[in-house]
This record gives sequence, structure tokens and C-alpha cells, in this order.
Amino acid sequence: MFFVPDIIEKKKRGLKLSKDEIQFIIDGYVGGSIPDYQISALLMAIYFKGMDEEETTDLTMAMAHSGEMVDLSSIDGIKVDKHSTGGIADTTTLVLLPLASSVGIKVAKMSGRGLGHTGGTVDKLESIPGFCCELDTKTFIDSVNTIGAAITGQSKNLVPADKMLYALRDVTATVDSIPLIASSIMSKKIAGGADKIILDVKFGNGAFMKTFEDAQELGQLMVKIGELAGRETVAYITDMEQPLGLAIGNAIEVVEAIEVLKGKGHEDLLELCLEFASEMMLLAKIESDKTKAVQKLKDSIETGKALAKFKEIIGNQGGDSRVIQDYSLLPKAKYQSEVAAAEDGYVNKIDAARLGLTAMKLGAGRQKKDDIIDPAVGIWIYKKVGDKVKKGEVFAKILANDEAKLSWAVDETRKAFEFTLDSIEKRKVIWAKITKDEVLKF
Amino acid sequence: MFFVPDIIEKKKRGLKLSKDEIQFIIDGYVGGSIPDYQISALLMAIYFKGMDEEETTDLTMAMAHSGEMVDLSSIDGIKVDKHSTGGIADTTTLVLLPLASSVGIKVAKMSGRGLGHTGGTVDKLESIPGFCCELDTKTFIDSVNTIGAAITGQSKNLVPADKMLYALRDVTATVDSIPLIASSIMSKKIAGGADKIILDVKFGNGAFMKTFEDAQELGQLMVKIGELAGRETVAYITDMEQPLGLAIGNAIEVVEAIEVLKGKGHEDLLELCLEFASEMMLLAKIESDKTKAVQKLKDSIETGKALAKFKEIIGNQGGDSRVIQDYSLLPKAKYQSEVAAAEDGYVNKIDAARLGLTAMKLGAGRQKKDDIIDPAVGIWIYKKVGDKVKKGEVFAKILANDEAKLSWAVDETRKAFEFTLDSIEKRKVIWAKITKDEVLKF
Repeated sequence: MFFVPDIIEKKKRGLKLSKDEIQFIIDGYVGGSIPDYQISALLMAIYFKGMDEEETTDLTMAMAHSGEMVDLSSIDGIKVDKHSTGGIADTTTLVLLPLASSVGIKVAKMSGRGLGHTGGTVDKLESIPGFCCELDTKTFIDSVNTIGAAITGQSKNLVPADKMLYALRDVTATVDSIPLIASSIMSKKIAGGADKIILDVKFGNGAFMKTFEDAQELGQLMVKIGELAGRETVAYITDMEQPLGLAIGNAIEVVEAIEVLKGKGHEDLLELCLEFASEMMLLAKIESDKTKAVQKLKDSIETGKALAKFKEIIGNQGGDSRVIQDYSLLPKAKYQSEVAAAEDGYVNKIDAARLGLTAMKLGAGRQKKDDIIDPAVGIWIYKKVGDKVKKGEVFAKILANDEAKLSWAVDETRKAFEFTLDSIEKRKVIWAKITKDEVLKF
Repeated sequence: MFFVPDIIEKKKRGLKLSKDEIQFIIDGYVGGSIPDYQISALLMAIYFKGMDEEETTDLTMAMAHSGEMVDLSSIDGIKVDKHSTGGIADTTTLVLLPLASSVGIKVAKMSGRGLGHTGGTVDKLESIPGFCCELDTKTFIDSVNTIGAAITGQSKNLVPADKMLYALRDVTATVDSIPLIASSIMSKKIAGGADKIILDVKFGNGAFMKTFEDAQELGQLMVKIGELAGRETVAYITDMEQPLGLAIGNAIEVVEAIEVLKGKGHEDLLELCLEFASEMMLLAKIESDKTKAVQKLKDSIETGKALAKFKEIIGNQGGDSRVIQDYSLLPKAKYQSEVAAAEDGYVNKIDAARLGLTAMKLGAGRQKKDDIIDPAVGIWIYKKVGDKVKKGEVFAKILANDEAKLSWAVDETRKAFEFTLDSIEKRKVIWAKITKDEVLKF
């Protein structure tokens, strides 16, 4: 039995908390015997004094075990989960689901809805007429065993400690603590039942981590937690100084994912999907050579296997799989407006955060938990950093269901793009790969 | 209108809070619109990032105005309040009440009960049969106007913000923050209506502040708050490495106070009382020369004027004033035991904290709010640091109402005294005096 103020005092003085102390805190908080006001003081002390790898792992495991632990053992093979720390226009999971499964990986994807500039992956898929992301456990597992991939919303009882802690951090200015972020992410991954984990840690103005260094620190900590928790984890540090790919929205990101599977996607999104999917193949021991893995994935796209797998997944979850060929079956916005360049030049910067916020205010994302997402709205961008534009050339298109918001969004999008007269290099997409043994910079 | 997480974030980043932000926090907390969990996170951020003099003054004033502001304007003259940050065996207020009033200072004393090693001044006085410390405001003020002094328990509606904040700090490990301590003390003094304030900031193992430096920091901050709040404040840094005077308890501290007024008190307690009372005379503009002030006080003791004043105060508040001559009228403990020296030597150290805790466990103080104080129990010490003791000489006496506790307390008291063969200097009582202009070391 511990005395909570002593534990807070200990952390306040920068001392290391024991596994038992951390377990006591999480059990007490979830069980209702430790009040919010003691936890928030502890969280603030953690913000200032940090937690080492061992403490963060103990916290992660105590959180993971605070609710349901998903059991994926009835699915054959090594289950690899990919998780992104969040950014603007992150369409990778939509692509990976069919792409990875088309080469033989079993993809059992659980995905939250949450708040954000656009919906989560489940929200995006639900813009496909009929697509259902609320599968019961049996249907979910059977689907993965039968067709190789399925996606479902997160179980309500998954990591209740994280739900409680996150809600508290949100109102007590204690969100931006690397050990707290790491334990929040990793506890959900571990409770979600994956054997191995790929983390996409984004940095830049459109991501939570603003600098490469912070992203690297978070990535290394999570890889370490994965190792200590017995779940091999690989983290990538990727660019979020501009949106990934071209679509920011829900239905339009489904379109973009299909385009990638048709071999017509934007190169940066494709590059990331090939890297993640090939790494999944290595981790799942389906392939041992990286180059061969990438080639198999490219072949799967070229031969239409990956696209066919997406069709199968959509059909299996009740969706209208004709969308693959006919995008007009997806929800359409009432209004649209193109944004054209005023002068010749090159794209110098794209303010990803501003575009994300604009998409959210158009209705593409949730500001509050019970906001309803409008699947039809969003922003297409046609130019990325380093791309040449000519005077009068369209570089973005706004889709809206509200005329007033349309013109506002056009204005915001224009402000989000910065042009220059001199040619400028394209931005790197993947900056580093972190394994338990090394940090490999790209 | 402010957003609480923004205010927490601001302090977390070490920025200065505005007067309006601080007012919003206190109003919201006392009014119930800001929950404990946001306040505790803010308190922890304040612990780490501090508050400057202006912020601490704004906090102090917002707290002071959160409840009743006592109006002492119907009492003639300049009202000077003396406050101690708390220590072991602090009998000064018991002495000052009659001593200061015997030379013409109007003493309107409001005093809390609270937790501690012994009771507060009101608890101590209530060990006199019949003595009543629950005066209504009119009786209290009339008494001061008529006989020059009165004491009453603290109004229940005095600084509710402090009661709430203190209770929260106590369970969230945020007690030991100098700006929070300073604002807690000063808000009560300011709401209490005094025109000028003398602070006794104690340091040492029996005090909250362990070092001279911390005590000085706290003292200087409170003097500054007093200045900014328009209440001239003088702070003394005094010794609490050993108990003050000789008695640790309630009834026995009344006895000790009477002894001082009879000219028979211990020199260290007398020194402190003369310093504070003479300073009160200067602040109240009753005397302009320190030496003359001290002489008047000494005269008051020598002529019996101060003792007569105490008799008058006791009688006025319903107490049996015969205790002045007959200590047997005070509550008596059932058991007593003397503690004698094992060898010849000198007192090297006295662990004040240990003696305080022993007195509390005998029943002299409150551990929890609703504990009942036993006025009869306590510890007399007969030797102080630097005093010579002979083998077999009694250096302490325990008074208990429980035989098992008696022998335990004898043992604890013995352990609290450390002896040495070599002669050693007596400890200074007053270490420094802090005014708005200077820190004068003694």
C-alpha cells in the first residue's frame, strides 16, 4: 500500500517510481480510489521531471492491462500493426490494408476515431456506401483468417486508463510530455494484440512533434518500450512539414488510396506505403530481403492484385466495391472551387497545420467527440514543395457543403501556400528509421 | 474570460500570469467552476516555475478577498499583527498579548487552531478554566477598545481560497513552494485587518523552512507582498533548531508565559518577546526609539503591569484569572516522569521536530482536523543547547495521561537530546530582521 502524495513528491524530486508504485497509481485511478486532482499533479511532475525507459514501460504495461487485452492468437502468422502519431492527409493505412494483405500478411487492424483534422481510417472507409467498421470480435478474426484483412473500430474497453489520462491531460496542459505520449500510444498497441509494431512518428508543422529531435526521442523511447515489453518495434521518422499525398478529407482519401493501388498515386505517399509494407513483410517473416519485398509489392500493384484485395475487403465489410472503378458512388460535396497561382514560381512551403484546420472546419474532422464528420468535404492539393507552378495553374481544389465556408477555405488554402521564384528541392518523406539497435538516417 | 489550460500552460512555460488571470483562477476555484484537478496541475507548475513578487501579491490579494475582510477601523490606533510560520513551543503570542497591550498597543488577535505539534494560541488559552476564544465581532472589538487586547478564533469565512488551496496542496505534494506559502500566510494577515505585520519566519529542524536561506527568501517575499499591498511588514528570521523556551504543550505554555511576565521566563523566549513587542511599539508609533521601547517593556514586567494585564484579559474572556498565582488550577496530567542525564556534559543538539512529534502523540496537538487536544500533557525541557548538565541531573519532564505513552515519550525525549563533553556556544535566537529596505543580520 502506498500513499499517493509520497509518490507525487518522489516524482517531483526527480526520483524514479517503482513498478509497484506505477501499478498502484493506474489501478487506483481506473478503480476510482485516486482522484483526478492527485493524478493531474503527478502528470505535471512527470512533465517536468520525465520518466526513464523502465518507468515508461511500467506505465505502458499497467495502462495496457487496465482493460481488455485483445487476443489475436487464433490468426495464423506474425501480426504486425502500423501506427501513425498523426498528421495531415495520412492515407497510408487505407493503402496498407489491401497492399500488405495482397502479399500474404494478415492485417487485423483496429483503429480509433478520435479528434483530428480529418476522420480516422475507420471514418474514411465509412464514406464508402455500406462499409461497416463495427465488427464483433469473431467476425473480425474470421475475416482476417478468410480474406487476409479486416478493420474494426477500437473496443470500448481498450485501455480505459489511457482514455481517462488523456482526457485529464487535455484539460491540465500536460499533453506534451514524451513519456506520457509514448505510454499512451504503446499501451494501445500492446493491448491491441499485435506481435510487432511499426510506428510512423511524424514531425513538422502539421504534426504534434514539431522537430526531428523530439520525434526521434519519442521514436527511440517507443522502440525501447516495445523491446522491454517483448514486442519488436520499428519507428520511422517521417515528414509532416507538408501534407502527405494530395487529398485531405475522407471520401477523397479513399479515392487517393485507390489511385495508389492503381499505380497512379503521388510518389511520396507511395514511397511511404512501400517502405511500411515491405518492413511489415520482413517483420512478419514473409520475406527476408528488403529489395525483393519492395518488388513483390510493386508487382502486386502492377498486376492489380492489391486493388482486387481492396475490392474484396470492401465487399467483405458490406461496402459497395464498385467505388473502385466509379468514384461518383462516393459522397459528393455541393460546392467546389479551384485555387490558381497568381504568378509563375515554385512551391516553397505548404502550411500543413493550416490546411488541416481548414479541412476540419469544412467538416472533415472532429473538434469535439460527438461532432459528425462530413465525408464529402476536403481539400485536394496538386502541387507539393519543390513543384513548379505557372501563372493561372490550379494548385488546389476545395470541396465544401457550405458556400460561405467554401470562399473562406479558398482564402485559407491560398495563405497556406508560399511560392518562390527560385527552384527548390523536394522534401524528403522518410527521415530516419529507428530499430532497437540503431538510428538509420535517410 | 480565460481558458484554464492556457493559464496552466503559460505557467508551465515559466511565463508570468496577469492579475486578471490570477483573479479568474481564484474566483473560479472558490466559485466551483474550476475543478481541483486543474488547480493541482497549476500548483505543481507553480512549484516548478515559481511566481514573482507581483504575481504572488496578486495571488495574495485575490485570496484575501475571497471571503470576509475583517474591518478593525473602529479600534483606535495602528493595529499591528504578529504571525509565526510555526515551530515547536512557540509561546510568544501568549506573552505578547498582555505585554504589548500593557504598554498601550491595541492588540486584536485572531488566531487559527489548525494542525500542529501543540495547539494554537487559542487552544493554549482555553486550557485556562472558563477562557472563551469564540467572541462575536462586536464583543471582540469592544474588548480591544476597553481593555486593550482580545483574542478570538479565526472567522470561518476568512480566506476560503486558502482553506481550499491548502487542503489541495496537502494531498498533491505542493506544500513546499515559497510563493504559495507566502500568499497563504499574507492573505490571512491582510484579510485579518491588521495595518502592519510582524512575521516570525522560523528555520531549522523544528520548522517548515529547514535552512536560513529558504527562510530569508520567504521572509523577503512576504515583506515585499506587504509593501505592494500597502501593509508595512517586518520579518524576523529566528531559530528553530531547538524548541523556543522550555515548555511544549498547552497548559504548560500558559504557565511559561506567566513566568515570563513575572520576569522569570527563559532568556531566549524573553529576548524574542521583547524584540517583537518593541518593534510593535515602533510600528504602532507608540514609541520612536527602540532602546526606550525595550526599557518600557522591561519596566512593565518588573512593575507587574504586564502580568496584571494578562489577568485582566483572562477575566474579560471568562477565564479563571487566579491561575496567574495558582498553576494547580490548570489541567494536570495523571502521570509524569523526569529524564536525567547519564553523564556529565553539555547539550550539543536538541531535535525540535522529534520533541514536537512526541508532544503531539502525547495528545498536545492535532494530527487530523477533528482530533481533541489534551491541554494537560506535554514536555518541559530544562536545558538548552550550550547548557551544562551533570550526571543524574534532570533535563526534561514528561507529562502524560497514558502510562504507555509516558515511557515511550521519555525514551523519545532522551533520543532528542545529544550531549558532548566539550563546552559549546548557545544558539542565537534572532538571526536576521528584514524590512523593505534591508536585511539586517544579527
